[in-house]
Amino acid sequence: MNLAQKLGYPENTKLLIIHADDAGLSHSENQATIKALQNGSVNSYSIMVSCAWFYEMATFAKTNPNYDCGIHLTLTCEWENYKFGPILPITEVPSLVDQNGYFYKTRSDFKNNAIPSEIKKELTAQIEKALQFGIQPTHLDSHMCSVGVTPEILDIYKDLGKTYNLPVFINKQFVESISLSDEKYNFENTLLADDLLIGYFTDFEKGELRNSYAKALDNIKSGFNIFLLHPAFDDFEMQGITINHPNFGSEWRQIDFDFFTSEECKSKLKENNIQLITWKEIQKIN
Amino acid sequence: MNLAQKLGYPENTKLLIIHADDAGLSHSENQATIKALQNGSVNSYSIMVSCAWFYEMATFAKTNPNYDCGIHLTLTCEWENYKFGPILPITEVPSLVDQNGYFYKTRSDFKNNAIPSEIKKELTAQIEKALQFGIQPTHLDSHMCSVGVTPEILDIYKDLGKTYNLPVFINKQFVESISLSDEKYNFENTLLADDLLIGYFTDFEKGELRNSYAKALDNIKSGFNIFLLHPAFDDFEMQGITINHPNFGSEWRQIDFDFFTSEECKSKLKENNIQLITWKEIQKIN
Repeated sequence: MNLAQKLGYPENTKLLIIHADDAGLSHSENQATIKALQNGSVNSYSIMVSCAWFYEMATFAKTNPNYDCGIHLTLTCEWENYKFGPILPITEVPSLVDQNGYFYKTRSDFKNNAIPSEIKKELTAQIEKALQFGIQPTHLDSHMCSVGVTPEILDIYKDLGKTYNLPVFINKQFVESISLSDEKYNFENTLLADDLLIGYFTDFEKGELRNSYAKALDNIKSGFNIFLLHPAFDDFEMQGITINHPNFGSEWRQIDFDFFTSEECKSKLKENNIQLITWKEIQKIN
Repeated sequence: MNLAQKLGYPENTKLLIIHADDAGLSHSENQATIKALQNGSVNSYSIMVSCAWFYEMATFAKTNPNYDCGIHLTLTCEWENYKFGPILPITEVPSLVDQNGYFYKTRSDFKNNAIPSEIKKELTAQIEKALQFGIQPTHLDSHMCSVGVTPEILDIYKDLGKTYNLPVFINKQFVESISLSDEKYNFENTLLADDLLIGYFTDFEKGELRNSYAKALDNIKSGFNIFLLHPAFDDFEMQGITINHPNFGSEWRQIDFDFFTSEECKSKLKENNIQLITWKEIQKIN
């Protein structure tokens, strides 16, 4: 039986989770995520425990357990002026931070410095903090897919999923595309998302990001699909956070918000017979 | 000799520092502070090491050492959804945090829980972190004047000033007005600001905040005066931070920004023969 059948749908159903990354990053990201859940087509999000606006989003998560809420495990911080780092004391996880005590900006600096035992310790602390706050997480995923850089780190991530009985988001093609290792990944006995739908910078540059989302929904295949977006408002705060970083920048995030709260998106889901599913359903049968 | 004379001015000069609190709190606060320094009448600010936007402001401080930059020692967090806490691991300073690991919201919860040795440890860490970042601080002051709640805590603050050879901001009347202790303060051998000029909620509520600032400049007395303001933009981020807290809320902070970058303010300073001075000058003769 494939995932669709296990969930009670016909074998060739186009399953989709529409998932908002980066909740907790900023007020703008939080409020756009909340609106996209309440009024849009987004049905899942994940929360960054390391960020200053975690508390606001955690409060929403506790009072709105009807939405999928994952933990967006964080080991990198890509922004120029807005910094975050481990929730553990940096003396406990020194290999995860730069000279200022913040996470490295790139997956490659992270990969070249991070010691696996410290990665495991920090990610465990992030999950535990979310649990202490009363969040009931539905899944795990990873900021900038930093857990995908080597098979060893991906195994830590998969093990955390087993330990906490939470499905983990993995797309084989995406992990392999960002890999920084020559070693082979072991995807056996792992639930894999068949297709990862995500925006591309080339489309954004051409002003085609919104259209690319519409097309992706038109071309969606049967199987387990995940649409990853980053809804936020193109406001002063997000412009400050994403300065000099148009890739997944504030303008991009506004487009994400606009499309996934649009009537066009709702119609596309209907026209294409797309079946929205949740991590919660997957958790039950996993 | 009084302070004016020590600084080379006539005895009865109206000395004034126009000081912006809370830099580092948010992008809005940072950018408004920077604009108020560069284009307005503000000539001093202090930075919150515990906050998410510290890095952006610290970068400004390092590249713009011409402005007074103090360390805004932080032991409380008054906001509902936007939280910060110690920079030390909370296991080292457990008496400073609530059940979620953040600073207490009120001076009174802080006073009832905080152990003096932990206060000293955390404040030292905040100063050390600023120094490590390459900031050359010109003075110390305190968020919500939490160091003023008891004579014992005020002494820690004064001692830190001596240790780091930094003048500390103290106004006797203000400290006594927020005191939570029956014991007497010892202000001997302490440089005191004669008058603290600050906005009041009653004026804000009546729509008279801006006028109260203009009047305060008209009525300024000779001596060592400090105007405390909190410039920020009344934008989505600051509205999120200051939600349900109109006292020093985002609307208030926009008024602070508007007045202290206005021509009216500049004229008032001139008309009233007010002499702007800096903590840097005071540091030299202290």
